[in-house]
Amino acid sequence: MTAHKPGDSLQAEMWAIGAAARQAARAMRETSAEQKTKALMTAAAAIRARKEAILAANKADIDAAKAAGMPAPMIDRLMLNEARIEAMAAGVETVAALPDPVGRELARWSRPNGLDIARVATPIGVIGIIYESRPNVTVDAGALTVKSGNAAILRGGSDSIRSAGAIHAAMAEGLKSAGLPETAVQYVKTPDRAAVGMMLEGLDGNIDLIIPRGGKGLTSRVMREARVPVLAHLEGICHVYIHEAADLAKARAIALNAKMRRTSICGAAETLLIDRKVLSSHGLPILADLAAAGCEIRGDDAVRSVFPPAKPVSEEDWRTEYLDAIIAVRSVDGLNEAIGHIETYGSHHTDAIVTEDAAAAESFMTSVDSAIVLWNASTQFADGGEFGMGAEIGIGTGKMHARGPVGAEQLTTFKYVVRGTGQTRP
Amino acid sequence: MTAHKPGDSLQAEMWAIGAAARQAARAMRETSAEQKTKALMTAAAAIRARKEAILAANKADIDAAKAAGMPAPMIDRLMLNEARIEAMAAGVETVAALPDPVGRELARWSRPNGLDIARVATPIGVIGIIYESRPNVTVDAGALTVKSGNAAILRGGSDSIRSAGAIHAAMAEGLKSAGLPETAVQYVKTPDRAAVGMMLEGLDGNIDLIIPRGGKGLTSRVMREARVPVLAHLEGICHVYIHEAADLAKARAIALNAKMRRTSICGAAETLLIDRKVLSSHGLPILADLAAAGCEIRGDDAVRSVFPPAKPVSEEDWRTEYLDAIIAVRSVDGLNEAIGHIETYGSHHTDAIVTEDAAAAESFMTSVDSAIVLWNASTQFADGGEFGMGAEIGIGTGKMHARGPVGAEQLTTFKYVVRGTGQTRP
Repeated sequence: MTAHKPGDSLQAEMWAIGAAARQAARAMRETSAEQKTKALMTAAAAIRARKEAILAANKADIDAAKAAGMPAPMIDRLMLNEARIEAMAAGVETVAALPDPVGRELARWSRPNGLDIARVATPIGVIGIIYESRPNVTVDAGALTVKSGNAAILRGGSDSIRSAGAIHAAMAEGLKSAGLPETAVQYVKTPDRAAVGMMLEGLDGNIDLIIPRGGKGLTSRVMREARVPVLAHLEGICHVYIHEAADLAKARAIALNAKMRRTSICGAAETLLIDRKVLSSHGLPILADLAAAGCEIRGDDAVRSVFPPAKPVSEEDWRTEYLDAIIAVRSVDGLNEAIGHIETYGSHHTDAIVTEDAAAAESFMTSVDSAIVLWNASTQFADGGEFGMGAEIGIGTGKMHARGPVGAEQLTTFKYVVRGTGQTRP
Repeated sequence: MTAHKPGDSLQAEMWAIGAAARQAARAMRETSAEQKTKALMTAAAAIRARKEAILAANKADIDAAKAAGMPAPMIDRLMLNEARIEAMAAGVETVAALPDPVGRELARWSRPNGLDIARVATPIGVIGIIYESRPNVTVDAGALTVKSGNAAILRGGSDSIRSAGAIHAAMAEGLKSAGLPETAVQYVKTPDRAAVGMMLEGLDGNIDLIIPRGGKGLTSRVMREARVPVLAHLEGICHVYIHEAADLAKARAIALNAKMRRTSICGAAETLLIDRKVLSSHGLPILADLAAAGCEIRGDDAVRSVFPPAKPVSEEDWRTEYLDAIIAVRSVDGLNEAIGHIETYGSHHTDAIVTEDAAAAESFMTSVDSAIVLWNASTQFADGGEFGMGAEIGIGTGKMHARGPVGAEQLTTFKYVVRGTGQTRP
């Protein structure tokens, strides 16, 4: 416990939020599955009931943002309408309907001395979520932390502060109705950016985990400055490898979908690796498909010789997450070279192989050290909803704790519960 | 990739160790269970075969340490003899015989679109282990990292450098015999302490996890300075709570064992909480047992009124890990006050309740936020061997990744392996 300077009112305010969250976390971990479900169902209803107030708050945010000259794509992310509000409410109901992740017995065994040892899923504690001006994150993050029995401290972008506040009021109503502390989900209202720095330092030991939700600038700041564990990914340089035994139709469909379905998401492919043996037979139609869909092709010499419209690719391209209609294409001599490329340039996010050769696929999936490896499927499946998790709060690429989509189950940790009959250790 | 300064030879040397470990980690994750077992069985045989060389190296370390005035307890930790060498070899065989933790399917499900999703255990990558002058840690840590398919960078205390080197040679022989890279287990030979700082910074991204193994000074430095994840516990302020429904015989046996079996280990009890209702009936004989065994009792007023020889206890005592024959004793009004005390003063390591009331026990074990919670058993069971893990590299009290005893299974992470038939995302 470090004393804060008298008069440092922001720190006092933030530490009070941390202390309240810690206290709420204890109530949350003692809460039944039914109470959490009730809180979320009531919150969903409250989002619908408060629709007018949320839209009014959002209009005030939008007006202020427009007056401040915010660019149109950011205005679009900030904007709510009836359909988006309905989607938020439905999302909370989806999370409410998930199986309760707390209390699951992950393992259980007995020892020769009769001790009964169980590894049981428990909430993590207090989770800080730092995001940009997307009001829906307030709902997604709040719902997942409640479902997983944690307490949340939410800090959204200051441009969305009125919208987030109105949405947060609906979450608080849900918590209250279920007899849970409203402080289980707190929203940091101050526009002072120093509040983020204080959260990254852990609010005097009262934050157990930080999850950033936003662009690379936000995430890299959080990873650099946080003094508590962070679940995140910095970038998604995802690869699709067309193996020599790839089925042509699957290869065309997967490459096109992986790159072009949505170019701006982290699971979008950025690099295509094509086995030299199928560079003409498969590479040419794949690249023609991509170009026809409006994708810029950047290739090595071999690629350009079969597909002359391709621009030359540079070393820098292999390390670039375009998040745009651009793809870097490299010809490789077999599986090992493909794996080596991914090892050197990849970001341990999501990588796919297209092949009919099961042994090659298994070898690829064993060797590629990424959170998600796919065989004959698009990298765009890298998503908690597509995995059946109901919702996700992000995707992790670190090695520790949780990797891949982070849903309610991934927001738990565990403890060992040991039941004895008086055993002492010899 | 940060360039290092020309002429900075230690950094060049350490970064080369990191790069070699990263390369070895790829070979290790592609290795079969059989190869890893063979490497460990051969290493165990090599430890026995090299007994004379290990003893000679150890004698040189001991002579140098004595000349430098090392205190006797530290000399004892450093010293090897035939029995300790045999125990090291047998320990490696125990780890070799454990089930392979890599490749386990932790979960598997299918999606409506036919995607087959598996969560599969994989090695973490490169693990740095920083420890004091205990030669046996070289063996324990090396064996567990090999078993779990990781690469290890070991840095032991500089006083044990000759002993550790001789032991490491046996590990290298085992790896070589199984066709695995000897660089899968590297030992940092330089006595320069700056090498530790470089490891804590991650050796240019080539260390995924740091495990400190040693006293509080070492662990707190590692936790403070590490730029990569750390698995550790800083202290073990373990509690035994004697509930009003405790069986007297169990309570006496557990309290005595938890405190006095070995006072210097992290699972030793430091604080005893006794329900006021049983302070005379149970507290008195328990405290008498402890005092008779040579334990100093420090108690609150109520405790001192039933057991006058107790010294007064201070607020500081509740926060102290004595690791000695001293116990702090508090009288509490029921379960909730006991849980509150542990929440305020505990270290999230190991805490026990003694009671015949199953509901009270379950409530205690749900509410106490520690890595290990026990019902009617001694806190001294907080140990990987006692849990049946075969061996442990330490005990974690963080919330992320692994808590409690850290064995081979806890040195793995996971990936999602997704098998498709050409699916693209709508």
